[in-house]
Amino acid sequence: MTIMADEIAEQPDATARTLDALLTQRAELARLARGRRHVLFVARGSSDNAAVYGRYLVEIHAGVGATLAAPSLATHYGATRDLSDTVVVSLSQSGATAEIVETQAWAAASGARTVAITNAGDSDLATGADLALVTRAGPERAVPATKSYTCQLAAVAVMADALGAGSLEPELSRVPGELSRVLDDRDGIDDVVGMLAEAPTTLVSGRGLVFGTALEVALKLEETCLKPVRGLSYADLRHGPIAVVDPAMVAVLVAAQDGPMLAGMTELAADLRDLGARTIALGGDAGLRGACTHALAGPDLPEVLAPLGLILPAQLAVEALARTLGLDPDAPRGLEKVTQTDPSSPA
Amino acid sequence: MTIMADEIAEQPDATARTLDALLTQRAELARLARGRRHVLFVARGSSDNAAVYGRYLVEIHAGVGATLAAPSLATHYGATRDLSDTVVVSLSQSGATAEIVETQAWAAASGARTVAITNAGDSDLATGADLALVTRAGPERAVPATKSYTCQLAAVAVMADALGAGSLEPELSRVPGELSRVLDDRDGIDDVVGMLAEAPTTLVSGRGLVFGTALEVALKLEETCLKPVRGLSYADLRHGPIAVVDPAMVAVLVAAQDGPMLAGMTELAADLRDLGARTIALGGDAGLRGACTHALAGPDLPEVLAPLGLILPAQLAVEALARTLGLDPDAPRGLEKVTQTDPSSPA
Repeated sequence: MTIMADEIAEQPDATARTLDALLTQRAELARLARGRRHVLFVARGSSDNAAVYGRYLVEIHAGVGATLAAPSLATHYGATRDLSDTVVVSLSQSGATAEIVETQAWAAASGARTVAITNAGDSDLATGADLALVTRAGPERAVPATKSYTCQLAAVAVMADALGAGSLEPELSRVPGELSRVLDDRDGIDDVVGMLAEAPTTLVSGRGLVFGTALEVALKLEETCLKPVRGLSYADLRHGPIAVVDPAMVAVLVAAQDGPMLAGMTELAADLRDLGARTIALGGDAGLRGACTHALAGPDLPEVLAPLGLILPAQLAVEALARTLGLDPDAPRGLEKVTQTDPSSPA
Repeated sequence: MTIMADEIAEQPDATARTLDALLTQRAELARLARGRRHVLFVARGSSDNAAVYGRYLVEIHAGVGATLAAPSLATHYGATRDLSDTVVVSLSQSGATAEIVETQAWAAASGARTVAITNAGDSDLATGADLALVTRAGPERAVPATKSYTCQLAAVAVMADALGAGSLEPELSRVPGELSRVLDDRDGIDDVVGMLAEAPTTLVSGRGLVFGTALEVALKLEETCLKPVRGLSYADLRHGPIAVVDPAMVAVLVAAQDGPMLAGMTELAADLRDLGARTIALGGDAGLRGACTHALAGPDLPEVLAPLGLILPAQLAVEALARTLGLDPDAPRGLEKVTQTDPSSPA
């Protein structure tokens, strides 16, 4: 059993621990955000994909403007900004990525209130923030993030719950159980791994609340299985990249079981089939599964929380695919656990 | 001569006409933006790549928070937002893309002041906006956007100039002349076309102010030459995708001749060479060109305006590459001039 497989299996417990710990911080989060009109996320890599979910969730569930920062504004351009109307949320598993720590400090100096989401409570990112949401993933030893990513999603959901008018809590409490159920269901994994192993070109598409999931599936496939894979929204796909779809392509189509994106994604599945591409449904409903060549069932969670469970079948497939390809899922070529974006620059 | 080649050649005149017309609207733009703390761009496809430039330029030159909207918040989620602190800038060559028109109307109803950047002064997008910046590209007949894209960049620069403390104008007036000069210099095009024609995998990397240029080069290569191509920042490249770099890859590295990204991009060129990849410098300085296998010279413009000229050598290469591959650059497979994102949904 690989370390990555172990860490995938730990996710129900890890998210349960994280939710138990962080749900008690909602009042403090709400106080910190009082009077602030915007949320700005700062992250890279898998943390960035968690931030993409956070951006949609905060905008849709809490009705607050949210976006992702370009860290280079702080680290390279020294841009001047007035962030006195903004809560800046920085995500980093290690809390040690230099550009994220630096951007958080810049944000604080620009008037922002700062929240760190990290798995390391004693990290520079956590100790430098006004409030730290410390995820309880436990030490993550495989290079590809799995449990630290789902715990970040849980932290983001707690934050949106604190900012929002309605409550996500009754559904949030069902998350760990749904994660267990999804992990126990390996239906379709072998078919999907077989198809991906032979695919010359792979793309992953999602939109809206599950767009971050599509990006994370693409990143995991790419870094673990060493194949160039792209994640993009179906709207962006139709604006150009659909020109390159041909029978050599395998497309992974990500959707929640409900929500306003399901119809468009099902329509995309049919169009891709007409272009000769083969398709894998990740989540969705019976209609999407029926429109795709293969399918991996997702969690029984509403669209606002679906990303917490949707990534799991993809992680299982990626881990199995790496082994099928003779690769080591725990330590992909060319990557380290803490990435420095500008290797030669001073920390 | 293809229509695309004709339209590439028209860009010095088209941007000169556009700048002449739009520079007179700066006072009106400044009045419209008074008291607004944020800029939100709405766009898709090539227009989205122009908006990425706009986002960095507004944040860096004008010190105003800027970001790109997720149109689905308006079109699919019906999210409630208070945009009374925001100027919403919508970009669409045709002014007829349904989701962009719809998102602009949602923004206005949410309290935003609205600016349309479009090549069609009588379009729904232009007539529905508080202020229309009508680009003077003339009718664009080739499906891949060229002159309409550079005119959008010019409009975005005028807008940032209106919002900013300093003036871009003396340098802006040099743009059409630099575009002519860049078009006259076909040095390296044949080498680059030959290398791209044989590349199994291509990626395009830029960062900061030229990140949108990298995305646009990737989109043009993809939609015109029917090869999957990805554009990404060098920071994101180091966070995972660098795992898939191997000797089969050709990387196009985009940089201005100056600015804080040049050192990191030159370092990336060296690292990619060490991984066996071949590289093409688009712009940059002698150091970057020396670190790459081939090079296309960019304009003599400062980083804040470099994107207006940097795209031109890439357009020349893409047009020639399409012909080399036996494809029609004017009408790529599977694309139409006005894209509807959700084909079956009501306008």
